[in-house]
Amino acid sequence: MKLSKGGVCTPKGFMTASAQAGIKYKDRTDMALIFSKSPCQYAATFTLNVVKAAPVRWDMDVLHKGTPVHAVVINSGNANAATGAQGALTCLKSAEHAAEKLGVEYENVLLASTGVIGVQLPLKKICKGIDSLADSLSSSKASATKAAEAILTTDTYKKEVAISFMIGETKVSIGGMAKGSGMIHPNMGTMLSFITTDINISKKLLTQALSDVVEDTYNMVSVDGDTSTNDSCILLANGEAGNEVIVKKDENYDLFKEALLMVNKELAMMIAGDGEGATALVESVVTGAKKDEDARKLAKSVITSSLTKAAIFGHDANWGRIICALGYAGVNFDPDNVDISIEAGKKRIDLVKDGVALDYSEKEASSILSKDKVRIISDIKMGEKTATAWGCDLSYDYVKINADYRS
Amino acid sequence: MKLSKGGVCTPKGFMTASAQAGIKYKDRTDMALIFSKSPCQYAATFTLNVVKAAPVRWDMDVLHKGTPVHAVVINSGNANAATGAQGALTCLKSAEHAAEKLGVEYENVLLASTGVIGVQLPLKKICKGIDSLADSLSSSKASATKAAEAILTTDTYKKEVAISFMIGETKVSIGGMAKGSGMIHPNMGTMLSFITTDINISKKLLTQALSDVVEDTYNMVSVDGDTSTNDSCILLANGEAGNEVIVKKDENYDLFKEALLMVNKELAMMIAGDGEGATALVESVVTGAKKDEDARKLAKSVITSSLTKAAIFGHDANWGRIICALGYAGVNFDPDNVDISIEAGKKRIDLVKDGVALDYSEKEASSILSKDKVRIISDIKMGEKTATAWGCDLSYDYVKINADYRS
Repeated sequence: MKLSKGGVCTPKGFMTASAQAGIKYKDRTDMALIFSKSPCQYAATFTLNVVKAAPVRWDMDVLHKGTPVHAVVINSGNANAATGAQGALTCLKSAEHAAEKLGVEYENVLLASTGVIGVQLPLKKICKGIDSLADSLSSSKASATKAAEAILTTDTYKKEVAISFMIGETKVSIGGMAKGSGMIHPNMGTMLSFITTDINISKKLLTQALSDVVEDTYNMVSVDGDTSTNDSCILLANGEAGNEVIVKKDENYDLFKEALLMVNKELAMMIAGDGEGATALVESVVTGAKKDEDARKLAKSVITSSLTKAAIFGHDANWGRIICALGYAGVNFDPDNVDISIEAGKKRIDLVKDGVALDYSEKEASSILSKDKVRIISDIKMGEKTATAWGCDLSYDYVKINADYRS
Repeated sequence: MKLSKGGVCTPKGFMTASAQAGIKYKDRTDMALIFSKSPCQYAATFTLNVVKAAPVRWDMDVLHKGTPVHAVVINSGNANAATGAQGALTCLKSAEHAAEKLGVEYENVLLASTGVIGVQLPLKKICKGIDSLADSLSSSKASATKAAEAILTTDTYKKEVAISFMIGETKVSIGGMAKGSGMIHPNMGTMLSFITTDINISKKLLTQALSDVVEDTYNMVSVDGDTSTNDSCILLANGEAGNEVIVKKDENYDLFKEALLMVNKELAMMIAGDGEGATALVESVVTGAKKDEDARKLAKSVITSSLTKAAIFGHDANWGRIICALGYAGVNFDPDNVDISIEAGKKRIDLVKDGVALDYSEKEASSILSKDKVRIISDIKMGEKTATAWGCDLSYDYVKINADYRS
């Protein structure tokens, strides 16, 4: 299976649109719509933050009711979080307006917002934006790309990907788009990520597949340790591929799950590599753990450490910070039995063997750390489990971006 | 009770010295010695990091054995962490050397190191440093101050304080010095903190008092979320004040504990305010929690949030990041029932009432956040418990300092 350059319109029957609603930004689009005429099975994971944005609560209600989904209305520039009863009312009014324009019920409409917290979403602008979106729906690749651009905030590049594979004689596709950048430390699903598929599958299995995949993708990403109020990963399946419906964990389910993993992993890595101010994607691989959960905790602790991130920004192979971050991950291991290596492309240097420094060249190590994709491999030699987490370095620009995000 | 300007030599019978051993830094002192001719009761808390530095393991062994303590040998510039068997041997040799010079047993000598991880400590230099320290012991205030300077790394100011109070007719004193700056997210005690006292108290109560106090002081500080390999808070009591020994939790114990809390709180605040690159001390107060533990988690989550810290550096009253950080602290509360205020000196602005923004002046809020001591007060209105945590803002200089710490 191989990822392709498509997006959320790659699966059959999905259309998108983007619009300039003037919510916060000037001279750029800030709203997007995903639409499927066929009703979609809907699976999703949301932020575990106690402070959940109004659109997150809205989507959770729809998920709970179990109604099929036809549309997702997305805006950037305003998170509609910490906006109280008025924020919730804005959700209802937006969904009603979209439903009327699209000829569906308001319960078939999902909402997603990203941007500043604590400011009321301007309903009039949103409704005008929805009008414009509904009038310009298209299933073209270009339209999907424009939608992927409209949902960005401080991201520096769009994040979309697709994949197609065969279930028997039937071609099935998955497409996705996401936005990340700051306040990225998902605990559930992620920031905003929208996955479409035309596969025909039971809701139970759709939900199961997403939940498994999120664990090894978005939940292994951190930019700054801040778990957002708006994290949402929404997966829509409209069944238009026409394959015989998947109702058990057979080889077709495995195929779908593998493809879903590839799509989400790619989006997760794009999010990590485009963290606010990032100059490098940092991949932390931990091997030799006794349990999957231990491996995950250790891998994530390394890419979350501010000191390790700053050292990578400085191209300094300061492995003491790596072993320190492993040490406070909450997993027991023998520090005198740890190996640490760094890798970029085909170059690899072993820094630490059995807990103490090897005689490596600082210059060569620094050259590896100057690449835009850097891998740190830590082996605790206690078992067979392994995990990978993705993050980025900590640069002056992270501080710059966040010292004046609102102004 | 009032804090005074003294240090570790304020209590009777303690002497200090500092020396220039040339371990890493040029043109500054990098070793210090605390010595008491009278044997000291010894209580301590250490890092919970799995990767514990060699001197931490040494001091834990002494604590476990229960032998009295006469001396603490401290060096900056090298943490003697992740240094394997050789690092442990260096500890033994250093303690033996110090014991011989000071006329005590090697088991009466504690060790503490701070600085870069993963580099062997140069034993010859340490031993020469010990010779110089032992030859220049003094109980003067100036000597204590020089010792407090010798233990610093990237700190920008020395951290020492003292307090005296009466137990009946007897004057009792506590003195302390500490170093902090980066890799500061203590989970136990802290970075390096040394407290001396001449009080006469049972070891059991000494240990109990320290353990209680650490919970509300060092464990409520964070600079960057990184829990160091070397965190140590060492408390020595030589009994020279001559008060009747305290053996139960009476009013004298309470007096001692109150004084100990004041000393450690002051050192903890100094550490937070002098975090790497910090331009402000940030105090996060959480009120209205149901449990102490909840209040602590919430207060600490706010001062640990990179986004909140960057906003404070930018003097931006971006309270959305504060409520977001409360939300992922792992404590349940109703986001629609939260009040948030900021305060500096006598100026206070209420930003949020019942989860939504008030109509405050951004300019005035920004002026408050431009002060060098800023307080954030969050009330979740669920109970009576309160907690305070200390941190600092996140500036360009944090990145600068840590992008080239080793070079």
